[in-house]
Amino acid sequence: MQILGDVKIARMDEGSPGYGMVEAACLVIDADRIAWAGPETDLPARFAGAPRRDLGGRLVTPGLIDCHTHLVFGGDRAREFEMRLEGAGYQQIARAGGGILSTVRATRAASEDGLVALALPRVDALLAEGVTTIEIKSGYGLDIEAELRMLRAARRIGRARKVRVVTTWLAAHALPPEYADNRAGYLREVVIAGMERAHDDGLIDAVDGFCEGIAFGPDELAQVFDRAAALGLPVKLHAEQLSDLGGAAMAARHRALSADHLEYLGADGIAAMAASGTVAVLLPGAFYTLRETRLPPVAALRAAGVPMALATDCNPGTSPLTSLLLTLNMGATLFSMTPSECLAGVTRNAARALGLTDRGVIAPDLRADLAVWDVAHPAELAYRIGFNPLHARIHGGEFV
Amino acid sequence: MQILGDVKIARMDEGSPGYGMVEAACLVIDADRIAWAGPETDLPARFAGAPRRDLGGRLVTPGLIDCHTHLVFGGDRAREFEMRLEGAGYQQIARAGGGILSTVRATRAASEDGLVALALPRVDALLAEGVTTIEIKSGYGLDIEAELRMLRAARRIGRARKVRVVTTWLAAHALPPEYADNRAGYLREVVIAGMERAHDDGLIDAVDGFCEGIAFGPDELAQVFDRAAALGLPVKLHAEQLSDLGGAAMAARHRALSADHLEYLGADGIAAMAASGTVAVLLPGAFYTLRETRLPPVAALRAAGVPMALATDCNPGTSPLTSLLLTLNMGATLFSMTPSECLAGVTRNAARALGLTDRGVIAPDLRADLAVWDVAHPAELAYRIGFNPLHARIHGGEFV
Ligand SMILES: [Zn+2]
Ligand SMILES: [Zn+2]
Repeated sequence: MQILGDVKIARMDEGSPGYGMVEAACLVIDADRIAWAGPETDLPARFAGAPRRDLGGRLVTPGLIDCHTHLVFGGDRAREFEMRLEGAGYQQIARAGGGILSTVRATRAASEDGLVALALPRVDALLAEGVTTIEIKSGYGLDIEAELRMLRAARRIGRARKVRVVTTWLAAHALPPEYADNRAGYLREVVIAGMERAHDDGLIDAVDGFCEGIAFGPDELAQVFDRAAALGLPVKLHAEQLSDLGGAAMAARHRALSADHLEYLGADGIAAMAASGTVAVLLPGAFYTLRETRLPPVAALRAAGVPMALATDCNPGTSPLTSLLLTLNMGATLFSMTPSECLAGVTRNAARALGLTDRGVIAPDLRADLAVWDVAHPAELAYRIGFNPLHARIHGGEFV
Repeated sequence: MQILGDVKIARMDEGSPGYGMVEAACLVIDADRIAWAGPETDLPARFAGAPRRDLGGRLVTPGLIDCHTHLVFGGDRAREFEMRLEGAGYQQIARAGGGILSTVRATRAASEDGLVALALPRVDALLAEGVTTIEIKSGYGLDIEAELRMLRAARRIGRARKVRVVTTWLAAHALPPEYADNRAGYLREVVIAGMERAHDDGLIDAVDGFCEGIAFGPDELAQVFDRAAALGLPVKLHAEQLSDLGGAAMAARHRALSADHLEYLGADGIAAMAASGTVAVLLPGAFYTLRETRLPPVAALRAAGVPMALATDCNPGTSPLTSLLLTLNMGATLFSMTPSECLAGVTRNAARALGLTDRGVIAPDLRADLAVWDVAHPAELAYRIGFNPLHARIHGGEFV
């Protein structure tokens, strides 16, 4: 039992407006759980004798949650980025071995150890900003063995660092060259068969797909989702990033935890997501990197009561981003979300996008995953660009 | 005398294409200077006995230079940022005490100690990314005493940290309320009289102005520049950020070191800058924060041979940015500069924008201000977003 005293708390609970601020507050931690949080003057007598650590008036928020990443991968796309800026066209980059398939080749060639070693600096950058839960997707293996290796690497990251890793099966990310003329075969032999095997091995927490003209259609992905449902696995979808194929509505029919990207989401998709309680995960890093101009329908999502989350989408092609704080700033600057919506997007709503009910809010009995910040007001977390005011990160009640 | 061995060097010299890479290189440091740099196999015999420190194949670049900041200021604009995103209009924010004058009020109210204490975390964020030289402008005091206090704070930062601080007199940043009806009086009694006093006190390295409809016109600023020339002080100008007033051409006529922002720069301004050797300092943090859509004329500047620099423009209103690496990424992503142009923009050309000929390039006799990076290729410095691969910072030959 431990009291964290002399703090301001942003509870981020659904019932409160804005941040759910509690000034002149304290917080009681019992093992890995929050036992109590509230104004110092209301501290129940039963906790009064617990050891106390004062935090100098600092702000405590829930630990941050990055609910959409592809941060396990082999290789590097920096030279491809450079070639494009030096004027190389798509064909030239493809001939030089660029594009997503270059990441697939490098990921297939990497060992599990190698994937972990490459990913850890990216993970450490996130943890340094107060992240306590990270989702990691497969999707650069595109064969069963390489997909499973990515997920085992992801699970190992969760043991190598003080962070909860949530894994997602995303074999339906792209069609590998060996199945170029056999889409149905890929879905059956790799996406679905691999999902069953990964599920048997305890390697997946959810199932995802990339619904886009350049990837898979809603009907193809619905087959995958039906099979996921039979296995008891929740689903989520990359939807409406480059065009409106009705992916979000299909995902909502499958009671998806989230639909992600959503720049081209229309009114039908919004209504379907609102009805199913599906979280809208917005990914401003990809929007920024692609110099996209079509904005996700933030005002309409807000009006419909669809919960909005924000994530880095950390990936080597379209969002080589490893700062969740910068993602907050992009949510505000690029998507006109309010700073409190941005913070809810990496706490309460990010937890919900992962189906986690034990975190993302500061309330009794939830996990003591917390971040302590050197800021006067929580709006600073979204306002500043490229500055990290983290004072301490607390994972399962432990200062780490 | 010390040898840094087992490195790749990006010399960033003008004569080489791209980065001026030297593979399998080493570098000799003698006190605070570079004595030699080149391929290991060419190391002159006279250095062979010097103590050696191997850097594991890492990349060495010139120390980074942030050549345009306003990072000394009082107060905080996070709540103003939040109010705007929550739908408050200009009037409402002004009534709540927002806008540049809120920063002026807070800066006037701050002590020199207070200004230093507020600025140091911003400075430390820059240094953590390999910055070894920072320019800092006055411009939030708008009376002589407060402007001098800002500059004394800036000079103290250069003593409190291992960094060279270059100071710029920017009293012509905005018109303070007490001179609302007396523009000529402000220019004479504060801008010019204060410049003379600051120069006497050894507090300024250059003189700047904000040339814009909401600030000062080219003719007003030309008077300031004429007086600066009489004092032997170089000049630079905030020009063509929101409209084309011909500021850059006026600055070029005064042989300005740089013209900065430049989104609305036209062909005449480009030609004038090319003729005078004036550096174009591009500030993508302000472009991003303001959601500006008009791009600075990068292709035309490139074609005309105008050197391009990049800087954070760190300031509380339009660019609360303290990452020079993120600025490189923004230069590439938002302004389509190549990664090697971006790196030249925070090394060679940033030095030139400050009139410094002893740094910004790795060459014999220049200062040993260096950054050592954990990257395989220098393109990674512009490619990654929100990731800091700095291994070590070297200031005047000293690992710091
Ligand atoms: Zn994704
Ligand atoms: Zn400026």
